[in-house]
Amino acid sequence: MRELGIGLIGTGFMGRAHALAFNNARVVFDLPLNLTLVALADADPQRARQCANSWGFETVHSDWQQLIEDPKVHLVAITTPNHLHYPMAMAALAAGKAVYCEKPLAVSLEQAEQMRQAAKAAGVVTRVGYNYQHNPIIQLARDIIQRGELGSIVSFQGEFSEDFMANPASPWSWRCEAAHAGGALADLGSHLLAMARHLLGDVEAVCADSQTVHTRRPASAGDCEQRAIAVDDQVHALLRFSSGARGTVSSSWLKHGFKNHLAFEISGTLGTLAFDQERLNELRLCRAGETGFQRLLAGPELPGYAAFSPAAGHQLGYNELKTLEVQELVLAMAGETGHGTDFEEAWAVERLATAIRLAAREARWVTISEL
Amino acid sequence: MRELGIGLIGTGFMGRAHALAFNNARVVFDLPLNLTLVALADADPQRARQCANSWGFETVHSDWQQLIEDPKVHLVAITTPNHLHYPMAMAALAAGKAVYCEKPLAVSLEQAEQMRQAAKAAGVVTRVGYNYQHNPIIQLARDIIQRGELGSIVSFQGEFSEDFMANPASPWSWRCEAAHAGGALADLGSHLLAMARHLLGDVEAVCADSQTVHTRRPASAGDCEQRAIAVDDQVHALLRFSSGARGTVSSSWLKHGFKNHLAFEISGTLGTLAFDQERLNELRLCRAGETGFQRLLAGPELPGYAAFSPAAGHQLGYNELKTLEVQELVLAMAGETGHGTDFEEAWAVERLATAIRLAAREARWVTISEL
Amino acid sequence: MRELGIGLIGTGFMGRAHALAFNNARVVFDLPLNLTLVALADADPQRARQCANSWGFETVHSDWQQLIEDPKVHLVAITTPNHLHYPMAMAALAAGKAVYCEKPLAVSLEQAEQMRQAAKAAGVVTRVGYNYQHNPIIQLARDIIQRGELGSIVSFQGEFSEDFMANPASPWSWRCEAAHAGGALADLGSHLLAMARHLLGDVEAVCADSQTVHTRRPASAGDCEQRAIAVDDQVHALLRFSSGARGTVSSSWLKHGFKNHLAFEISGTLGTLAFDQERLNELRLCRAGETGFQRLLAGPELPGYAAFSPAAGHQLGYNELKTLEVQELVLAMAGETGHGTDFEEAWAVERLATAIRLAAREARWVTISEL
Amino acid sequence: MRELGIGLIGTGFMGRAHALAFNNARVVFDLPLNLTLVALADADPQRARQCANSWGFETVHSDWQQLIEDPKVHLVAITTPNHLHYPMAMAALAAGKAVYCEKPLAVSLEQAEQMRQAAKAAGVVTRVGYNYQHNPIIQLARDIIQRGELGSIVSFQGEFSEDFMANPASPWSWRCEAAHAGGALADLGSHLLAMARHLLGDVEAVCADSQTVHTRRPASAGDCEQRAIAVDDQVHALLRFSSGARGTVSSSWLKHGFKNHLAFEISGTLGTLAFDQERLNELRLCRAGETGFQRLLAGPELPGYAAFSPAAGHQLGYNELKTLEVQELVLAMAGETGHGTDFEEAWAVERLATAIRLAAREARWVTISEL
Repeated sequence: MRELGIGLIGTGFMGRAHALAFNNARVVFDLPLNLTLVALADADPQRARQCANSWGFETVHSDWQQLIEDPKVHLVAITTPNHLHYPMAMAALAAGKAVYCEKPLAVSLEQAEQMRQAAKAAGVVTRVGYNYQHNPIIQLARDIIQRGELGSIVSFQGEFSEDFMANPASPWSWRCEAAHAGGALADLGSHLLAMARHLLGDVEAVCADSQTVHTRRPASAGDCEQRAIAVDDQVHALLRFSSGARGTVSSSWLKHGFKNHLAFEISGTLGTLAFDQERLNELRLCRAGETGFQRLLAGPELPGYAAFSPAAGHQLGYNELKTLEVQELVLAMAGETGHGTDFEEAWAVERLATAIRLAAREARWVTISEL
Repeated sequence: MRELGIGLIGTGFMGRAHALAFNNARVVFDLPLNLTLVALADADPQRARQCANSWGFETVHSDWQQLIEDPKVHLVAITTPNHLHYPMAMAALAAGKAVYCEKPLAVSLEQAEQMRQAAKAAGVVTRVGYNYQHNPIIQLARDIIQRGELGSIVSFQGEFSEDFMANPASPWSWRCEAAHAGGALADLGSHLLAMARHLLGDVEAVCADSQTVHTRRPASAGDCEQRAIAVDDQVHALLRFSSGARGTVSSSWLKHGFKNHLAFEISGTLGTLAFDQERLNELRLCRAGETGFQRLLAGPELPGYAAFSPAAGHQLGYNELKTLEVQELVLAMAGETGHGTDFEEAWAVERLATAIRLAAREARWVTISEL
Repeated sequence: MRELGIGLIGTGFMGRAHALAFNNARVVFDLPLNLTLVALADADPQRARQCANSWGFETVHSDWQQLIEDPKVHLVAITTPNHLHYPMAMAALAAGKAVYCEKPLAVSLEQAEQMRQAAKAAGVVTRVGYNYQHNPIIQLARDIIQRGELGSIVSFQGEFSEDFMANPASPWSWRCEAAHAGGALADLGSHLLAMARHLLGDVEAVCADSQTVHTRRPASAGDCEQRAIAVDDQVHALLRFSSGARGTVSSSWLKHGFKNHLAFEISGTLGTLAFDQERLNELRLCRAGETGFQRLLAGPELPGYAAFSPAAGHQLGYNELKTLEVQELVLAMAGETGHGTDFEEAWAVERLATAIRLAAREARWVTISEL
Repeated sequence: MRELGIGLIGTGFMGRAHALAFNNARVVFDLPLNLTLVALADADPQRARQCANSWGFETVHSDWQQLIEDPKVHLVAITTPNHLHYPMAMAALAAGKAVYCEKPLAVSLEQAEQMRQAAKAAGVVTRVGYNYQHNPIIQLARDIIQRGELGSIVSFQGEFSEDFMANPASPWSWRCEAAHAGGALADLGSHLLAMARHLLGDVEAVCADSQTVHTRRPASAGDCEQRAIAVDDQVHALLRFSSGARGTVSSSWLKHGFKNHLAFEISGTLGTLAFDQERLNELRLCRAGETGFQRLLAGPELPGYAAFSPAAGHQLGYNELKTLEVQELVLAMAGETGHGTDFEEAWAVERLATAIRLAAREARWVTISEL
């Protein structure tokens, strides 16, 4: 079986999530390639070494460029802060390596555009970590829609809200800088936009409103010094899909009581389905002629679920969505058709988010093709 | 105790709901006026007589103008089809009678404007039947907001969806005619707009999108003949409140699985509250510092609830909201300050709905003061 | 149309609930008898007069025996404290009057036995106020079961819990005296036992455990003086139905967070249904072959609901269940077959409760026929 | 760092769950011992080899006794069918190896008693896979109880129901044989009993009722041949805890709509908490003085959760509970105090289940110390 050498850049939470996913994918799936955890890069060599030991990587680099150049590395996984996605991915593509980059693709649409072009030119597999799409119950939702079980889709109402910035004393962080793809829309909302596209396809036009509620935050926790904040705390938008469906999306990081509320309702002429990431193993469905919603609990009739458990109700967790993302990536690298988010699709998500920002700034409807 | 003579026009579902409410208000509340069910009007004299017997009205009229002229009638309650609200209310105001009119106030903003002016000139009590506002748990929500328990309000996300027109074979009815205040926004959405104003006050600007999904429907049930439909099946809008809060409203009568889903989430700097009319005795609340939502079940600590039951969990129903609406009306007529929806406020609701329609038609933000 | 003269004894919460129900039944239903609110009795003549005015009764009595003797009274409604049910009902039966008595039927099985015999001898209509059974969605549940849609019934798991006595500082009241049919089982649990019988029929044998958690309570609110308490704060029991179904029932008035949690799950070979009185307009149903529960929201396809509202989702409240109870009673008095709880059935509920107490006291299985 | 050599017997679903957990524990936790996946045993050498490759084991054995004798194996993990737990665990203990055995401990109380004695004699660490207890939110529940936040515990109402045997055409399997620890009580209910003990301690006495609803099932799927079934399809029991708390437990594998409904409500003098394994990341809590239940969603304030994710709402899955179980086991082997289920505790669970069976068979209360 062909080798697939993995090089991972970054040892934060998301780096470890990747490491877990690579390890688990080997145990859980009958993969067409032989995954090898070749190299781990972190600027701090001691941390790199320690993590490599725990996570099962063979070698370490304190210079990520060396990792990219390592001939045993076929796939470069990027889990560093957002502004580094661009230089790292561009370097990897230039070296002809496949790239698995965390979301968002980039910190500007210009960067995203270049990355998309570079990926096309390189002709390699690229993937961006919109992991929520790999939930088997989201696959079920997509199948229900694509099989026409909801009829013609009429509306999408989506929201991604959390409350981790609700407290005005929550300090400034890189998430508060536009130059690092901060703000509720970029940080949370982009997952929702990616999901909307994953399920319903292209958006044609948007109108939007966004707001910075807390315009100053402590420079660090408990700090008296304040920093000015310019990114959005919340955004609301209207969407027109190319299919004719209409809808709304909202995103906020100020909404008390919500922790991971990536939720949507999709209504069609033959039924409605509803999902909330806070209960990621459930889908609610009402078909025409039925009185109310039925709760579907993920079970082994869904292939992605069956890989982890033979019994309904056992439930998958966040990290297993990541493992499913890795599986799809490996299948794509083996030439088996995949449906994952490549740089082309991730660019389209960035373009949609950019259109929403423009619509909010200029208080008008924006056609996506303007961008 | 002073008499309050009631004249009721209309014997449909809503006429009976009024009759029930007048009867129950006398049993349940210690009212400052002595309610008398003076007269009932219906074009069909036999039906008028039969209903008057069941509902406890003293006399009947087949001509509603006679009811208005009856000197024993002090309050005229109007429950006829929407296009009749205007002539009946105008006649009652001209006769110096108080008016209790079902929603919507009128079938055009021009009519509503005239009714508002006439009410001001007449100097009588006017009320419009936005009964959902009289739910004691909505009063609790309003108190929570007004006491500042949610802090500064940041967002309102509201929806009123049902599915009674979801089936394309559901036939044409007056609800499908703009001239009768039809369409999802006017029929359902106006309740939501009234609620938004009731809880958060004036709206400054709106942007919106609306859609007729089923452009033809059978002329009557099972009929082969089709009628063209021009009113909205669904509408989505962005709202900017004068207070600075932002939000979305959606309304649809096509959404499978929803029966009376007048629902909202209101988020402030200190908490979030959520409500759904399909569970009208419940409020969900999360305060800053709490991990998740708590369910509040209406109980006798709420005065409007205590009037009906001494025990939490017993639950109020739709008809009891109407009885509470009547109580507020009677208090207003006795000169005790009320908070009900008068013609001035109902006009403001119509103006807001009209602004939403304009914004949808012209695909732009509309400032309410344009109208 | 024949007259049905009502005499009501008692002006407390439950008296008023009866008054509301009689008034509403006349407005809402097309009854076969002409209800007349003949007389109201209360030991305090001033209160009797005041309530009679508000509630629409023609005359008042301070002596309930005079009310019973009034020849215009055909039906005696008893809403006094539990220990008075026996003498009042026996007097009414002796006078050949129909009786509508609040639950529980009596404060001892001996009394209940005499009342049942007297009712049989009198040959009049008797009813006991197990109002929760008149919920249209409970009728739907019963129909589902009786039509065999759940297959053969395998289990019943029921609970009626509240928290109004959870605070040990909640003072002594008549509810703490066995001689007044106090204790969680008699006060709350009897509703559950009546419901179990209403839905699944006879119980053959029981085993049970009960407990007094707070053995002393203040004599009155805030009082330093304590009174010893002997009645049960909670009870748990195993049930064997004659049909072969098995189950559990629990009742507590100490369970924080529950306000009116009369809930059950009924499981059969072809499906499961679930209900909770705290959401009285909903039933949850899962049929064999379906993945999860579907929520059914009461709507006008249920006749009892349609009487109050033409639209699903409007919701009925507690008081409307009482109005439905009155309707059934009036139908029974008109000779149309009824399914309400008569003295025979109410005695069977008392016998079942008595068997549970015996099983708990003697720590053994008790066959109902022992009693 | 000291080596901990793992030998795993069994390659079914549960064997793979162990393999996943060992792999993940190394990535996620900073363990005090160096886990080595030494050997995997399966009767089929080819399957053993294939799984060992995927799962990362160094060597394989087709004879489990050789695995036990392997000097590099310090811990023997047993995931074979239930009737093999006894010989394998006894052999491992005889060899002085630590044992990590899947539940149930044994197929009879006599076996369990011998295993408990052997474990005590060997003086090694033993663990039994009651993995649901390792859920961080269950730890939170236990902490809440042990800190006295619910006051004195009054009641436990527990249930473990599924529907995988609801269809009478579901064929016979080893789960239908008492000699293999089959039946709803042994298969599902034992998890619930273990949980009840984990949270509330010893049980003193039980009374119970159990039933075989489908007494014959196809010998295999679609087979005309039927086999007689003697094990319980459902059981209901009353429990008296040594602490004075009372309660009920129910277990069924016939209950349509339930997939992994290991659920309980624990009520104390100061509050109530509720849990359902079908939503394993949630706890519902109502404290005295609060109106209703609050939903607590697992987050990084719980150490076991933080190990996997830095953000609330991300959610853990079934397999991660297993990883947490492995962590506790490794800590115990390093001499750090653990709270896991050892053979002594697992024997107590078996004794409790046996008492329930006896109580059901003899239709009487059984004191646990009788056994």
